[in-house]
Amino acid sequence: MARKIGSSSEITGPRIRDAALRLFARHGFAAVSMRQIAAEVGVQAGALYLYTADKQALLFDLMQDHMTDLLCTLQALPQCSDPAAQLDQFARFHIGYHLDRPDAVFIAYMELRSLSPENFAAIESLRRRYETHLQEILSEGAAKGVFTLSDAKMATLALIAMLTGVTNWYREGGRLSRSDVQTLYADMALRAVSGPPI
Amino acid sequence: MARKIGSSSEITGPRIRDAALRLFARHGFAAVSMRQIAAEVGVQAGALYLYTADKQALLFDLMQDHMTDLLCTLQALPQCSDPAAQLDQFARFHIGYHLDRPDAVFIAYMELRSLSPENFAAIESLRRRYETHLQEILSEGAAKGVFTLSDAKMATLALIAMLTGVTNWYREGGRLSRSDVQTLYADMALRAVSGPPI
Repeated sequence: MARKIGSSSEITGPRIRDAALRLFARHGFAAVSMRQIAAEVGVQAGALYLYTADKQALLFDLMQDHMTDLLCTLQALPQCSDPAAQLDQFARFHIGYHLDRPDAVFIAYMELRSLSPENFAAIESLRRRYETHLQEILSEGAAKGVFTLSDAKMATLALIAMLTGVTNWYREGGRLSRSDVQTLYADMALRAVSGPPI
Repeated sequence: MARKIGSSSEITGPRIRDAALRLFARHGFAAVSMRQIAAEVGVQAGALYLYTADKQALLFDLMQDHMTDLLCTLQALPQCSDPAAQLDQFARFHIGYHLDRPDAVFIAYMELRSLSPENFAAIESLRRRYETHLQEILSEGAAKGVFTLSDAKMATLALIAMLTGVTNWYREGGRLSRSDVQTLYADMALRAVSGPPI
């Protein structure tokens, strides 16, 4: 029998994930029950367990998918050979990707505390892969004499925190366009690792 | 009658605040009840209401005190006249102050969502005063030709996010000392607003 487009099994998964993401971001993981998620979706609480083992598994899936989608999208970018162009591209990508997903970003930082130790280790490992991508750009740039770094790992963490910070204040329709913000932050990121240490 | 040192009314306030801070940081504001805070302190739930009107007032007090202490400590720093020295001092101060208060920092960002609209406005206004301090350092440096900025407000937010990011990864006893990290971040902050835009 042909699969019915829009059958409940196809629709419910994404709707459960959307509802969980929204509720976790609004109230925090610990304050949200499976019953509330089910009510938000408009299904019985029991129906959630056809989709996910428990609330911890749901949180882990949301955080894992956020990180793997981020890594896959990053890897699909065209490869620039110049380290400065690579850093510029990374900065613009990081800001754009994160501005599109405020709830997922908020949860990715905020709910690390709520992961089981094994799940925390798995998310940390994905996060480290993402950080390594930027660290390699910086180290390659330093090797070529384009960047000056005292510590590539620490510079990586500093730049990622700076770029992610845009999600705390940026609103579409404000004084600066997204592209303005991307340009200004990419410029500050480049300058932070260029020129002689002061 | 002389005040008894260590009387229960003196001790309970700080203990309630410490317990609330720890529990909010661990589980999130929405997931923590007044009853749990009382149990953590070792008093009856009713005793909390002698100290605070409700959980919202407790959260607001914690966030307000964090911001006012931060502002007072900042204002007590010696005044350097050179903008580069001012920025260096600000960066070191910001990192040191925040590393000493990880729970308060976590709550200051994560639980803005849990404040009532009036309380949110009050905290935002304190935060804006803090940001204005850095923005004035940057603008003064730009006016003197020491810094090059495209947008002082945005550079302020970018640098604060970068510096605060240290609290996400720094652990005492790790590879880098606190002073190493302060030096490296202050250097990146200075470079990010120095030299020609790229």
